[in-house]
Amino acid sequence: MAPPTDPTDPAYAAGLDAADPLGPHRDLFVGAETPLVYFDGNSLGRPLRVTGERLRTFVEEEWGGRLIRGWDEAWMDLPLVVGDGIGAACLGAAAGQVAVGDSTTVLLYKALRAAVALRPGRTEVVLNRDDFPTDRYVAASVARELGLTLRWIEVDPAAGVSVDDAAGVVGERTAVVLLSHVAYRSAWLADAPAITAVAHDAGAVVLWDLSHSVGSVPLALDDWGVDLAVGCTYKYLDGGPGAPAFVYAAARHHEGLDQPVTGWMGHADPFAMGPDWVPAPGIRRMVSGTPPIVGMLALQDMLRLLAAVGMPAVRQKSVALTSYAVDLADAWLAPLGVALASPRDPERRGGHVTLSHPRMREVVAALWQADVLPDYRDPGGLRLGLSPLSTSFTEVRTGLAAVRDLLA
Amino acid sequence: MAPPTDPTDPAYAAGLDAADPLGPHRDLFVGAETPLVYFDGNSLGRPLRVTGERLRTFVEEEWGGRLIRGWDEAWMDLPLVVGDGIGAACLGAAAGQVAVGDSTTVLLYKALRAAVALRPGRTEVVLNRDDFPTDRYVAASVARELGLTLRWIEVDPAAGVSVDDAAGVVGERTAVVLLSHVAYRSAWLADAPAITAVAHDAGAVVLWDLSHSVGSVPLALDDWGVDLAVGCTYKYLDGGPGAPAFVYAAARHHEGLDQPVTGWMGHADPFAMGPDWVPAPGIRRMVSGTPPIVGMLALQDMLRLLAAVGMPAVRQKSVALTSYAVDLADAWLAPLGVALASPRDPERRGGHVTLSHPRMREVVAALWQADVLPDYRDPGGLRLGLSPLSTSFTEVRTGLAAVRDLLA
Repeated sequence: MAPPTDPTDPAYAAGLDAADPLGPHRDLFVGAETPLVYFDGNSLGRPLRVTGERLRTFVEEEWGGRLIRGWDEAWMDLPLVVGDGIGAACLGAAAGQVAVGDSTTVLLYKALRAAVALRPGRTEVVLNRDDFPTDRYVAASVARELGLTLRWIEVDPAAGVSVDDAAGVVGERTAVVLLSHVAYRSAWLADAPAITAVAHDAGAVVLWDLSHSVGSVPLALDDWGVDLAVGCTYKYLDGGPGAPAFVYAAARHHEGLDQPVTGWMGHADPFAMGPDWVPAPGIRRMVSGTPPIVGMLALQDMLRLLAAVGMPAVRQKSVALTSYAVDLADAWLAPLGVALASPRDPERRGGHVTLSHPRMREVVAALWQADVLPDYRDPGGLRLGLSPLSTSFTEVRTGLAAVRDLLA
Repeated sequence: MAPPTDPTDPAYAAGLDAADPLGPHRDLFVGAETPLVYFDGNSLGRPLRVTGERLRTFVEEEWGGRLIRGWDEAWMDLPLVVGDGIGAACLGAAAGQVAVGDSTTVLLYKALRAAVALRPGRTEVVLNRDDFPTDRYVAASVARELGLTLRWIEVDPAAGVSVDDAAGVVGERTAVVLLSHVAYRSAWLADAPAITAVAHDAGAVVLWDLSHSVGSVPLALDDWGVDLAVGCTYKYLDGGPGAPAFVYAAARHHEGLDQPVTGWMGHADPFAMGPDWVPAPGIRRMVSGTPPIVGMLALQDMLRLLAAVGMPAVRQKSVALTSYAVDLADAWLAPLGVALASPRDPERRGGHVTLSHPRMREVVAALWQADVLPDYRDPGGLRLGLSPLSTSFTEVRTGLAAVRDLLA
């Protein structure tokens, strides 16, 4: 019998699942056995099944058993060890350039302050009017305190910043270009290497927000010549609600990295407790306070899995999932007035798909009642976050069928 | 038979334990059954036995089961709910004035920036030359970026800042008085209400670092008229390594509180994702990024216990423990050249005792080999952190006997 060719056919989804080399990984996640449809892995990833027991064991054996000795034995280095793990598995970053700790907001503040300080005399920060609020708010705060001007790139909300958009705004006054690699609403995947080159050609540095791409889209920060980046670990890295963020700074900038939240853990010799703050060599100077050890546990399980699977395979699955969602939206939802608010070209699309309709807020509320959990983002956007290792094609079909039934 | 009167007699310690109304609580902590002597509860408190299972359950049922819905159902409010819990159990703070999140360093930075902004035109920050490094480093960074002058109080390292010390330095140029309530080396317990009054008389605001007092020394921030405070939760609050810190700001200041790390979670309406950052009403404006939910779990167990026991009983036990340590040091260690580097008056002493000797660094290294775990702090300080609910008098005697044997 020929395989089904109609994407709306349940057998079509089942066929995609059967042929999916990453399909079996779904069972590694808590809740995979339930009928719940989860489209919010780009907001809060599911925990791995091993993670709960890992946290219990940590409390009873490592924290409770090693007590203060744990700092010398392992924890002191953990921000850089886990940072290196993220760098190797997901970022294309050689060791010694990534540190974990703080929230994305705090790291963005520190990284932007450091980035601006790398370009003294320059007066502008370039960013996207449609970017995630925290990025805009933090940039506005830094601009206010340092007397900088924000230069906004205006984009089509269903797309994102193109290389030409960036080139049209970046200039000799630009200190920093601060952009999201994957846009939180549209999933637009920016051409990071080309935009980085545009910034460098103008003498500026780039600060990429990788929150919506890390663990979903392959990154090659070293190869792309990226200066600084921050990202979040509770989305595709499954670090748990409020898990600490990471910051990347290219080794060539370390000597001059100057950030203002100068705590003892970023000091060259924390236990000397000397009179003045002396920055630690390397990326450690971006660390401020005592590292959040418990918050770094869960994401280490996901990093091991991502390293084993490899980001190219993750991306392949991600593109297949989002393409399937687009196919179903074309077939079922376009006739009901739903518009695709994400790039149709998978080359320019990250790991989620946004579908817009004037009544989508109500639809999302009803979906939640039916144990189908997408996200809602103004204006009228149903956001389907399709975490590659924990989402099946059948789950995509079930969820979009529910959207269809509600709108019909 | 009369009870023993010699504090070095093992029966004396056993008698104190038998008469201790809080003695049975020790068995609630992981590791209480082991022979290890733990004198570092002021650096990293022991976990409660219930905490490991709580974390496992959280991962599997709340994070894994509720997924993104957890934010609406509970987590969004957790920084203020747990903050209120700390405020009620430990700080003497009415609801709505405490938020949990970030490291102590980051909160100190934000709180100091906010404190300085409350006193525009004033140019000085007063602090203690012997205070914890992060406090000095962060103040130096803030002074550098805002063009302020640091005014140092010079103190006897075995004591701390007296009311007269403060009055001698605070003046009409003082914007903020930043001091530790309990000194990290000497355990000097500052007279917080009187020093706060000195600051207020000069028109300045106070920012207290409560890291070494919260959960050990009763606090009455509202009654004392404190303006701002920060503190740490991994010491006497047993929140786990790197657990998030808290910030207190008196309600009268909320309207004018201006901190620079302006993330979406401190916005009046985070999900509006509007063009400008509008501070949330109340203490929430001190929140920056997505709150560290997993990191806030453990300390909630300890808060429940502290609330049930009550801080006066905790302080009574704490004074008894430190006084017993001083008695043993007098009897055993003074003859060996060991000096008490903490206040002898329990009214001016926090929850730890520091004993100094030129060879103390070697002694501490040898103690660790023998499963007796105090801390070492330059110069020559053996620091005995005696966490009131998890330390027994017999443990104190065993540990100090080991110090005696090593020095003899």
